[in-house]
Amino acid sequence: MANERTEISTLGEFGLIEHLTKNIELQNASSILGVGDDAAVIDHFGKQTVVTTDLLVEGVHFDLMYTPLKHLGYKSVIVNLSDIYAMNATPTQIVISIAISSRFSVEAVDELYEGIYAACEKYGVDLVGGDTTSSQKGLIISITAIGEVTPDKFVKRSTAQKGDLVCVSGDLGGAYIGLLFLEREKKIFLESPGVQPDLEGEAYVVGRLLKPEARKDIIEFFEKETITPTSMMDISDGLSSELLHICKQSQLGCVLYEDKLPIAEATRQAAFKFELDPTACALSGGEDYELLFTIPQADYDKLVLNEQISVVGYMTEAEQGAHIITKGGSKHAITAQGWNHLK
Amino acid sequence: MANERTEISTLGEFGLIEHLTKNIELQNASSILGVGDDAAVIDHFGKQTVVTTDLLVEGVHFDLMYTPLKHLGYKSVIVNLSDIYAMNATPTQIVISIAISSRFSVEAVDELYEGIYAACEKYGVDLVGGDTTSSQKGLIISITAIGEVTPDKFVKRSTAQKGDLVCVSGDLGGAYIGLLFLEREKKIFLESPGVQPDLEGEAYVVGRLLKPEARKDIIEFFEKETITPTSMMDISDGLSSELLHICKQSQLGCVLYEDKLPIAEATRQAAFKFELDPTACALSGGEDYELLFTIPQADYDKLVLNEQISVVGYMTEAEQGAHIITKGGSKHAITAQGWNHLK
Repeated sequence: MANERTEISTLGEFGLIEHLTKNIELQNASSILGVGDDAAVIDHFGKQTVVTTDLLVEGVHFDLMYTPLKHLGYKSVIVNLSDIYAMNATPTQIVISIAISSRFSVEAVDELYEGIYAACEKYGVDLVGGDTTSSQKGLIISITAIGEVTPDKFVKRSTAQKGDLVCVSGDLGGAYIGLLFLEREKKIFLESPGVQPDLEGEAYVVGRLLKPEARKDIIEFFEKETITPTSMMDISDGLSSELLHICKQSQLGCVLYEDKLPIAEATRQAAFKFELDPTACALSGGEDYELLFTIPQADYDKLVLNEQISVVGYMTEAEQGAHIITKGGSKHAITAQGWNHLK
Repeated sequence: MANERTEISTLGEFGLIEHLTKNIELQNASSILGVGDDAAVIDHFGKQTVVTTDLLVEGVHFDLMYTPLKHLGYKSVIVNLSDIYAMNATPTQIVISIAISSRFSVEAVDELYEGIYAACEKYGVDLVGGDTTSSQKGLIISITAIGEVTPDKFVKRSTAQKGDLVCVSGDLGGAYIGLLFLEREKKIFLESPGVQPDLEGEAYVVGRLLKPEARKDIIEFFEKETITPTSMMDISDGLSSELLHICKQSQLGCVLYEDKLPIAEATRQAAFKFELDPTACALSGGEDYELLFTIPQADYDKLVLNEQISVVGYMTEAEQGAHIITKGGSKHAITAQGWNHLK
């Protein structure tokens, strides 16, 4: 059964859509009309609607040589939900379009959708529409996520205040090291196809890359503790790059402390194997999908006991620029190297 | 100036987004937060939100040999707005993602966006977000359109009633003939590059393909005349295919009259040049983006004077199937040939 291959042409476009969407059960009261019409209908009943979109292209954003389709489907949803949470909002619906070449079978598309539906179920989101088409080459995935937020409770990037504490959720740099491992094993495999991948002990960093989660828990924590961040965004391109966005849009500067950056021990050890500085990976490695946010100093007591949140610095006047204080006490300017630079 | 070529790499992703979005002025009160954050924020103030999405892939959905980029941008927006109108709703926002290969210059992307903004302005829609990335090959455009509708005034495909009149807006078959002309001229050009395209007299059908409009006027007419169609969808794949969707989803049959099908004289003449039956083009040619809808017979008087609307048949019991009565009086079953079949 595992090797069965059904050509998509045997189903046709409408047949494929029917096949992929027949088991959908809408979970949200706001999902008034789902798949099967010209458009979906949503009613957020007095809340505001939050919308974000991402386009993922094979060979640019993912490599199917080491990305299982189920994980890809899951992650494609997560990266969009992460943007909704980064607005301090709750995701409620997604629409998804895929373009696939004839290289993909119905079974392959099923695997992709298994991941998509797993993410929808875990985060309580409804798939309410989309488009399925052919591509000349490779797989293309476009997802638009929709969420809701109590009027004017959304959090922008441009509203950080001088003196605010800079905070991040979880830990940083892992996904980038995971990518380095997978790229290394791919190269070895291409040169010597008989060699089995050696990912011993790297489950953590590889998992950070292939199966990220969106920080729903942090948004729920904010609500419970009545914390409203003064600014927030998710970390997809690397901490330095994102923090510089907040600085620029809020017209402020910042100071980070190297010894406060949250880096998992597994990430630190893995970085050393590549002779890389873990701090550089935390600052410039992307795809961790953690949240970066600022809070007034007065709110410090509300989050100090949450082990999933680290205070890593504070906002300053714009004239002071953006800097990091190293463990040795020296001061360096932060640059927007981001993900692409390291790559 | 026309031949200037600026590489996208000179701007970078953030520079390109800034370049493309710097002149946006939000037109709708519902657009609370636009481009520049993790997500956009929309408030439809008591109305319901309507969402649709389309993915357009170079070489599958469009051919840049005969599609000017500005027209492509315009049409990409129109096909989505058409889906919103087909719900009896008003489009208010779009988000747009593009993936481009290094073959495209900044000037080329500017042309594409000129068309996108022209459509936004004409239809009163705000561009509030998106994603810009690279592709390994060709141009990929993903648009999600968002609209609003008074609660529960949206019109589905599944609610046509037995005895309802079947109506279409505008005229049909033109876009398909336009495609045939452009494909013929492309073939001639590829065989003999010196030959100039001969589109004499075909401006109408070529325009139907390259620069379609969405039927905002029809939705406004419904509101003015207090008509609520019992079912509606837009005609992107061809009248037969779409009407069969309404039949299937409403569990009904239908009868069409050949002599009632609206076909422009220019389309009729152009069809004859290809030795094609204009009726077949109207039934099976796609991409006209007209509206197909059903109304109770009692509403006939309300729309009889609107020259942009034709009554082409009526809904029957499911057992009677879907048929067309020809000018000669014979009866044929309608099949879902649609666009792809003719192609």
